[in-house]
Amino acid sequence: MKTKTLDDLFYALLQDVYYAEKQLLKTLPKLAKESTHAELERAFTDHHKETKHQLERLEEVFEKIDRPAKGKKCEAILGIIEEGKEVIEEADAGDVLDAGLIASAQAAEHYEIARYGTLCAWAKQLGRDDVAMLLHETLEEEKAADERLTWIAKGSVNQAALAA
Amino acid sequence: MKTKTLDDLFYALLQDVYYAEKQLLKTLPKLAKESTHAELERAFTDHHKETKHQLERLEEVFEKIDRPAKGKKCEAILGIIEEGKEVIEEADAGDVLDAGLIASAQAAEHYEIARYGTLCAWAKQLGRDDVAMLLHETLEEEKAADERLTWIAKGSVNQAALAA
Repeated sequence: MKTKTLDDLFYALLQDVYYAEKQLLKTLPKLAKESTHAELERAFTDHHKETKHQLERLEEVFEKIDRPAKGKKCEAILGIIEEGKEVIEEADAGDVLDAGLIASAQAAEHYEIARYGTLCAWAKQLGRDDVAMLLHETLEEEKAADERLTWIAKGSVNQAALAA
Repeated sequence: MKTKTLDDLFYALLQDVYYAEKQLLKTLPKLAKESTHAELERAFTDHHKETKHQLERLEEVFEKIDRPAKGKKCEAILGIIEEGKEVIEEADAGDVLDAGLIASAQAAEHYEIARYGTLCAWAKQLGRDDVAMLLHETLEEEKAADERLTWIAKGSVNQAALAA
């Protein structure tokens, strides 16, 4: 499909993020299951719930712009998830793996932070402050999820991984 | 290879980022070439130069930790670059494509921000403040490159893309 307008570009990226969130919805329970630290497991479980709401919010955006809610294969998130799988394969369960899981999840968070940041800016430019507001809510949740992981890494997991 | 220690994890991620930077070194001139806005072209050209220094800095880190400088295939950056290629294929040259190029480059920047953030934290935990300092320099450059792109997008490109 040709992308001729900012509207087209916005819709294409929205589909990319919709696909990415669906992939993460499937991946987060696996990360929770692999975690040794209870607070890390909780962070992944909480973010899994949050991701469900974020998908609903995206569906609301599709509705508001009157375009069908569908996903578009996102090679970036597939690559990030693939790297996460490698980390799980290469490390035994425990503190070192936990440190690796955090790193993988933060790569995913940053992908989303970049994408929602762009979508917010484009929505505003398109005069759709209502849509921008919805996307901004998710953007703030992704930033908070990223900071929570940093906090867990620096607060306990990295030190435990060093001692492992 | 089994990742048994935080040292192993650090070295594996260092190789991932080294590979990613090499891919971006090849990609940035293409983004510059596709750009219509002069300030965007300049931002890509400047970041290309910066990426060369960042690769040298990574080689310095490999030397400091006494491990061979080599890359490890990074599926994430390949996915991000692949999506950037799709944007170029789907949009005609001009303001809309410029907006898409910025979005792609910011996805790459955020990938690097996530990775260098993790590497810095791990280097500090490993007691290698000298290494952390080097990685932190690059982290700050990546953040600045990302902000510069935001500034160009919001300052001129998005508006031009809307009018296109």
